[in-house]
Amino acid sequence: MMIKLTLRRALLALLLPGLAAATARADEGMWLFNQPPRELLRERYQFDASEAWLDHLQKSSVRFNSGGSGSFVSADGLLISNHHVGADALQKLGTREKNYLRDGFYARTPAEEIKCLDLELNVLQSVEDVTARVNAAVPPEATASAAFAARRKIIAAIEKESLDRTGLRSDVVSLWEGGAYQLYRYQRYTDVRIVFAPEQQIAFYGGDPDNFEYPRYDLDICLFRAYENGQPAHVKDFLKFSPAGAREGDLVFVSGHPGHTDRSRTVADVAASRNLLPFNLDRTKQTEVLLTSWSARSEENARRAKEDLFRLQNSRKRSEGLYAGLLDPKLLAGKTRAEADFKARLAGKPEFAGALAAYDKIAAADQVLWTQFQNKRFIDLGFNCASFDLARTLLRAGDERPKPNGERLTEYSEAKRQSLELTLFSDQPLYPDYEILKLANSLTFLAGHMGVEDPLVQQVLAGKSPRERATELVQGTQVRDVAFRKRLYAGGASAVAAANDPMIELARLVDPESRAERKVRDDQDEIIHQSYAAIARAKVALLGTAGYPDATFTLRLAFGTVKGYAEEGQPVPAFTTLAGLYERAREMKNRPPFDLPATWEKRRAHLQLDTPYNFVSTCDIIGGNSGSPVVNRAGEFVGIIFDGNLQGLPWNYAFNDEQGRGVAVESAAIVEALDHVYGAKPLVRELLDGQRK
Amino acid sequence: MMIKLTLRRALLALLLPGLAAATARADEGMWLFNQPPRELLRERYQFDASEAWLDHLQKSSVRFNSGGSGSFVSADGLLISNHHVGADALQKLGTREKNYLRDGFYARTPAEEIKCLDLELNVLQSVEDVTARVNAAVPPEATASAAFAARRKIIAAIEKESLDRTGLRSDVVSLWEGGAYQLYRYQRYTDVRIVFAPEQQIAFYGGDPDNFEYPRYDLDICLFRAYENGQPAHVKDFLKFSPAGAREGDLVFVSGHPGHTDRSRTVADVAASRNLLPFNLDRTKQTEVLLTSWSARSEENARRAKEDLFRLQNSRKRSEGLYAGLLDPKLLAGKTRAEADFKARLAGKPEFAGALAAYDKIAAADQVLWTQFQNKRFIDLGFNCASFDLARTLLRAGDERPKPNGERLTEYSEAKRQSLELTLFSDQPLYPDYEILKLANSLTFLAGHMGVEDPLVQQVLAGKSPRERATELVQGTQVRDVAFRKRLYAGGASAVAAANDPMIELARLVDPESRAERKVRDDQDEIIHQSYAAIARAKVALLGTAGYPDATFTLRLAFGTVKGYAEEGQPVPAFTTLAGLYERAREMKNRPPFDLPATWEKRRAHLQLDTPYNFVSTCDIIGGNSGSPVVNRAGEFVGIIFDGNLQGLPWNYAFNDEQGRGVAVESAAIVEALDHVYGAKPLVRELLDGQRK
Repeated sequence: MMIKLTLRRALLALLLPGLAAATARADEGMWLFNQPPRELLRERYQFDASEAWLDHLQKSSVRFNSGGSGSFVSADGLLISNHHVGADALQKLGTREKNYLRDGFYARTPAEEIKCLDLELNVLQSVEDVTARVNAAVPPEATASAAFAARRKIIAAIEKESLDRTGLRSDVVSLWEGGAYQLYRYQRYTDVRIVFAPEQQIAFYGGDPDNFEYPRYDLDICLFRAYENGQPAHVKDFLKFSPAGAREGDLVFVSGHPGHTDRSRTVADVAASRNLLPFNLDRTKQTEVLLTSWSARSEENARRAKEDLFRLQNSRKRSEGLYAGLLDPKLLAGKTRAEADFKARLAGKPEFAGALAAYDKIAAADQVLWTQFQNKRFIDLGFNCASFDLARTLLRAGDERPKPNGERLTEYSEAKRQSLELTLFSDQPLYPDYEILKLANSLTFLAGHMGVEDPLVQQVLAGKSPRERATELVQGTQVRDVAFRKRLYAGGASAVAAANDPMIELARLVDPESRAERKVRDDQDEIIHQSYAAIARAKVALLGTAGYPDATFTLRLAFGTVKGYAEEGQPVPAFTTLAGLYERAREMKNRPPFDLPATWEKRRAHLQLDTPYNFVSTCDIIGGNSGSPVVNRAGEFVGIIFDGNLQGLPWNYAFNDEQGRGVAVESAAIVEALDHVYGAKPLVRELLDGQRK
Repeated sequence: MMIKLTLRRALLALLLPGLAAATARADEGMWLFNQPPRELLRERYQFDASEAWLDHLQKSSVRFNSGGSGSFVSADGLLISNHHVGADALQKLGTREKNYLRDGFYARTPAEEIKCLDLELNVLQSVEDVTARVNAAVPPEATASAAFAARRKIIAAIEKESLDRTGLRSDVVSLWEGGAYQLYRYQRYTDVRIVFAPEQQIAFYGGDPDNFEYPRYDLDICLFRAYENGQPAHVKDFLKFSPAGAREGDLVFVSGHPGHTDRSRTVADVAASRNLLPFNLDRTKQTEVLLTSWSARSEENARRAKEDLFRLQNSRKRSEGLYAGLLDPKLLAGKTRAEADFKARLAGKPEFAGALAAYDKIAAADQVLWTQFQNKRFIDLGFNCASFDLARTLLRAGDERPKPNGERLTEYSEAKRQSLELTLFSDQPLYPDYEILKLANSLTFLAGHMGVEDPLVQQVLAGKSPRERATELVQGTQVRDVAFRKRLYAGGASAVAAANDPMIELARLVDPESRAERKVRDDQDEIIHQSYAAIARAKVALLGTAGYPDATFTLRLAFGTVKGYAEEGQPVPAFTTLAGLYERAREMKNRPPFDLPATWEKRRAHLQLDTPYNFVSTCDIIGGNSGSPVVNRAGEFVGIIFDGNLQGLPWNYAFNDEQGRGVAVESAAIVEALDHVYGAKPLVRELLDGQRK
């Protein structure tokens, strides 16, 4: 097993031979669109990534702010993403009578398309480097707190200036852990409507047991349409949908928004997260058991908890994979060696003393965070309860908005205002019984881990049992009423105080502690960022390397080959077929989660069963890439990423394509299913024609 | 809500008026058969518990050493217990082809009855007080370690002497937390055969969601037959089976083996367990998620993990109820007041200085245990893997058996030898993949909680990932071979060492740490026992109280009334009926775990649907009482305990029958189901006639 250290650079656009040799055999990289791996693609695949090809792919790619990716597939604003990316929207639109998440949805005409409650889409329009301006505003000798405040202030100013000037969503993105700052401008879409979703049973066929496994048989797709001014948006850039799909051995690309990776972190920094993961895993499993057991008590409970439960199970399986990777001595061996070598090169050179010291600074910052963790300061985690989140947002908006833009907590800055209000004023249904369940559990967790004698825990519980306290808070609060939220938000801190709402008063009670915990994190993060920036500069100077920064939920390009792999000596082919789906159901005796929806049972005879269904490729992806289009050399849509296999989970720390793979739904299967299972002819026509009618 | 402190006494047989007044309104008590609540029964229920009535009930009651209760119901050794008590035996007898646990079993003739692999039953024959002899052997000024060793030695001697003299299993039982020692002699049965088990689907109808809830609809029964010398055992004492069953308002009794209660513990001691419970709960949920997710991957996985999963879910729901109770300030308020009052009476009296100091000694011992916990010494918990348990038993048997009987770890003493060998040489199937799964998970847990850098963890993992290490250990060991175990057990320490078995060597590697952790616990337990004994003596002197000791998995008598209760203002009736079962399935749309077995669907028309099915009573029970007979004034079997409701879970700390109830299957429903669903006429006849044929 080959493990590589992802080398880093600040702003070099060209790949130098030294690194090319090291990565020659792996299709590694979550590349920036403004620093694409042109040489590498030319040498390894004889492919020329032209400006026009890249620009078109970039502007066809869509970020789902709820945490995923997608792409335009028609000039009339039709978008495709995963069912599990749309699940949040489907869940919020569902009622006791209409379970869209479970049963699916299809709008035969635009009039039937239904608007998502608080979904924001972003399409990247331009990128501007602002590193010099950000760094100039931070005094070199400032304390961590002062540096963090200065950096927050200049970033808020740059974002607001850009928003005012262009009207585009403007985010300053920190890349290379603070080695560079870039201003990303996005077209925003907030009127997004659901066009088609299959049953969750087929979208997430095999459920939790088959999640992160391969072979797979999932139709994990969801179609949306972006609207502007009440009409379908007309978009210039969209992907041509290929009915032919992909073939074994094809060079393919993935354009999407990988959420987070830790590849450039130091060995000690990675080891620090190995200390924290078991706690997070315990917490996830604890909530998973709660929701599983509550869901089993009635169908309506199951409907209400479905999306939360999916997210928990997904996160649990992912974290277990990461943790297993971290406990495998082989994973860190290569990284440890490379780091030791590099530190040896830094040693004794005064100009790199800062870079060398940075390793220790990062370790010291981790120690501060670990101490905070061991002191069991868990208030800032919140209470896993939407009513509390709304209450805290109202409280903090009242406190933060009167401050100068640059001094606010980041999420209350002017540039983030529209997104904040979209979330705060969402009409999403909140169920008191479900809120009580989760809040009582969270209070129990708090008492268990911070200790019931802790004075703050005592204040939070107010002399009651967790269940009684949760009941009185959830039943007593008005925050589930949108009009109430709008009134308090408009009225500011005095209106918030006058409301005397029990949930808001809970948020007020814990706010000093919560902010204090966050400040410790922010300050240490600043130290960590500065330290990584110093290491990055030394790497550029000594190794002259090129590459790509760790993932930051911003647009990236990955490339790779459609190919299978071997597992315990057995070959795992690249493709599955529709026939394989029926075979899997038979083999698993049609027991949930391996049962087929009635539609699929009924329409079996109408399907071309040898149609390729799911496939794997070596493209470098991670969580956040869900819904990313897979395109061929011609830039055509040949599939959609919906998962990675278990062996790909440690990609968070280091890429390795011996067995690790990204998993996609093939475009041909999408057409086949829409046409012959769901009878969605107009939709098929729009996909194939690239426009409606 | 009324909370009472269970008062205690050492050896007083009579209930004094002072206490009777305090408990007048509650059917509290897990009474010793040699100190029954005669006065109380006479006053409250005009019932005379004669010696003969008690003796017959005692000798009809059976302890399942796997953790439950039962009773003889025919002269030909027929026994009844719960399906979930028999589950362990059913699981061990199951194969890929024959899933007895899931599908049930019925032997139409004795020849078809199948022998359980390692089940031991005990029937209490006599009790002898040995307090004076035990205490005389312990020097008053000895250190905790020396006192523990002296006590262990005298107990082992008393047990061996009794075993040699009577041939009966002889256990010295510590009651009143060390206030008294009594020698319990049991008739043992180790040839126990399964006669009848229904499908788990109906035995555990409603599954985890309905567990600890009421109303219920479970046929949680399992019938066995005890054999002696290859023939059905002929027993003098067995319960007459009442086809009429119980009625609302009836006085009923429960004779069984409550496992453990904490009612007489000090407030600080109870608070100490409140610190530990969240950890145990996290650990349970962690394993529950593992087994649930593994079970979902195939039917055979589900079969293999079924019984473990049931135990985990049961334990999780129970612990959650306990923890919720401990976080309810009302639960401990009464206990806290009573303790403060009593301590005030001790204060300033030199003769009670020891009792007063005992409170602090218990708290100090808890602190030592808590420190050991916080230092994350978790090795002695083992690895949740049967192969490891076998390996450790072989290792320790080799080391312990050459020692004098009184100096061995208790479970290797002569009096325990037969039981140890029954378990060690059991033919129960062990599946390598399942063993690897659990061991890998346990090693991951260890690394997460003790820290992967811990030197012992490093030695345990031996430079491998948890998964790799678990695989090599499970695949490399021979302990799953019974002949191998017999050879090593016979050969002793040298044979064990010569085998060079990797799992045994793992057990050897961790044994010093494991024994050290255990020694800390044993020593502190000794201090805690001595302290409670001092408090108990002061209570007898000052309060002159009578009562019952905390539960110790020894035979107890509870009494109470068949009656419903109110929940959130709604009445919950005492009885359900067979009609209610069908109604529940309809209401839950027949979805698992609310689906009915095919037999029950098919035979519906043949059933008397108004037959009482499950019922609740105020009898004081707890885990271990599962399978206990419920008898009427005439001593007839009218039902069988299988659960308590959620409100009864805090009975671990304090009894309260406002809402807390024990849940039973009614005898009439048992006859109705055996006869009209299962066509088990010969069995029905044996139950009603009290003998076969």
